[in-house]
Amino acid sequence: MQEKAVVLLSGGLDSATCLAMAKNDGYDCYALSFDYGQRHRCELEAAGAVARQAGVTNHVVIKIDLRQWNSSALTSDIAVPDAGTSEGIPVTYVPARNIIFLSFAVGWAETLGAKDIFIGVNSMDYSGYPDCRPQFIEAFQKCATIGTKAADGGWKFNIHAPLQTMTKTEIIRSGIALGVDYALTSSCYNPDAEGLACGKCDSCYLRKNGFEAAGIPDPTKYQPEL
Amino acid sequence: MQEKAVVLLSGGLDSATCLAMAKNDGYDCYALSFDYGQRHRCELEAAGAVARQAGVTNHVVIKIDLRQWNSSALTSDIAVPDAGTSEGIPVTYVPARNIIFLSFAVGWAETLGAKDIFIGVNSMDYSGYPDCRPQFIEAFQKCATIGTKAADGGWKFNIHAPLQTMTKTEIIRSGIALGVDYALTSSCYNPDAEGLACGKCDSCYLRKNGFEAAGIPDPTKYQPEL
Repeated sequence: MQEKAVVLLSGGLDSATCLAMAKNDGYDCYALSFDYGQRHRCELEAAGAVARQAGVTNHVVIKIDLRQWNSSALTSDIAVPDAGTSEGIPVTYVPARNIIFLSFAVGWAETLGAKDIFIGVNSMDYSGYPDCRPQFIEAFQKCATIGTKAADGGWKFNIHAPLQTMTKTEIIRSGIALGVDYALTSSCYNPDAEGLACGKCDSCYLRKNGFEAAGIPDPTKYQPEL
Repeated sequence: MQEKAVVLLSGGLDSATCLAMAKNDGYDCYALSFDYGQRHRCELEAAGAVARQAGVTNHVVIKIDLRQWNSSALTSDIAVPDAGTSEGIPVTYVPARNIIFLSFAVGWAETLGAKDIFIGVNSMDYSGYPDCRPQFIEAFQKCATIGTKAADGGWKFNIHAPLQTMTKTEIIRSGIALGVDYALTSSCYNPDAEGLACGKCDSCYLRKNGFEAAGIPDPTKYQPEL
């Protein structure tokens, strides 16, 4: 029997690749997305399209309201900065986002009898996010194992972060090899009403450069130049 | 200036006591509750009443939908068992509930600039719940510190679990000494439409015995005997 895995799926380039890797590893995949009041809601439509293309067994979108904290440019009215204009932890950082997302993944995994969770974090491009670092993933894995039935059952959760040390170019090449259709994905922090990418934010910048360096045509639909 | 603390507040006896302890320790308290589709929704009204009586600075109720997993007697149609009738991890266990709740608390704490989180878990009465154990609280504390700005700021989160090793009787005596009005709290897993306690579930049983052993009149309103 295939082992089940819960795969966190934002609808972006990284998580779509991560899902393809989980499928390629032979897992029966359950995709988990969050409607957390993000400004870039076209991500959720992208997540649905990616999940369908990958043929996941189930795709659940959990609605949570992080806007009550109102402190991040991804969920509030703080302007999204252009790439390379800020230092340290970016203002697009959502407090504890991956801790929250992984916690839900653990809850669903425990319910499904899954021991494996996939998350597309990457410490090369996003070293500014504390909850993308390998040390965090490792600490979370311990915490999840101790805090669930796993501890009593004598097994442990595996939090897979296969993109952890890959460059954007390597991620794109791997995804292409696994059949990912990146035209379905959405990475922009600041898309317009039709979901067209701004081409200017950190996320667009990394994505654009990734395709260029990989020598692969960029399928992203960008907003027309003003 | 007073240090801020986020206090998880279910509306039950334990969390009301935990909040009183946080206030007594001098913290500026921010109470956090969850509307997670629990069958005992009168808990949320109780949480509001307890928060008001304690004079918290803010009380936020976050709505999340754990019912999609449909695996626990607290959120589904599985019958709540009478006290002492089951062994091991109770069917009222909600997968990863405290991991999820604590993750939100960390997000809010980070937003508020709070380093302290209070949770009323107790390993005496609830040894069957993996996410109530001291080892879990410790692992979570590490994980929260590594996964947030705390790591870069050189400080750490403190997850306070002051009830951890207390008996129900000790908890009740401490709460009474701190002025907790237990008539406002709701502990029953299976209350009726008016919020009256069943008097039969594990939670009612522990509460009832706690008041009796403490020699304190039980202010709980029970359903009339059929």
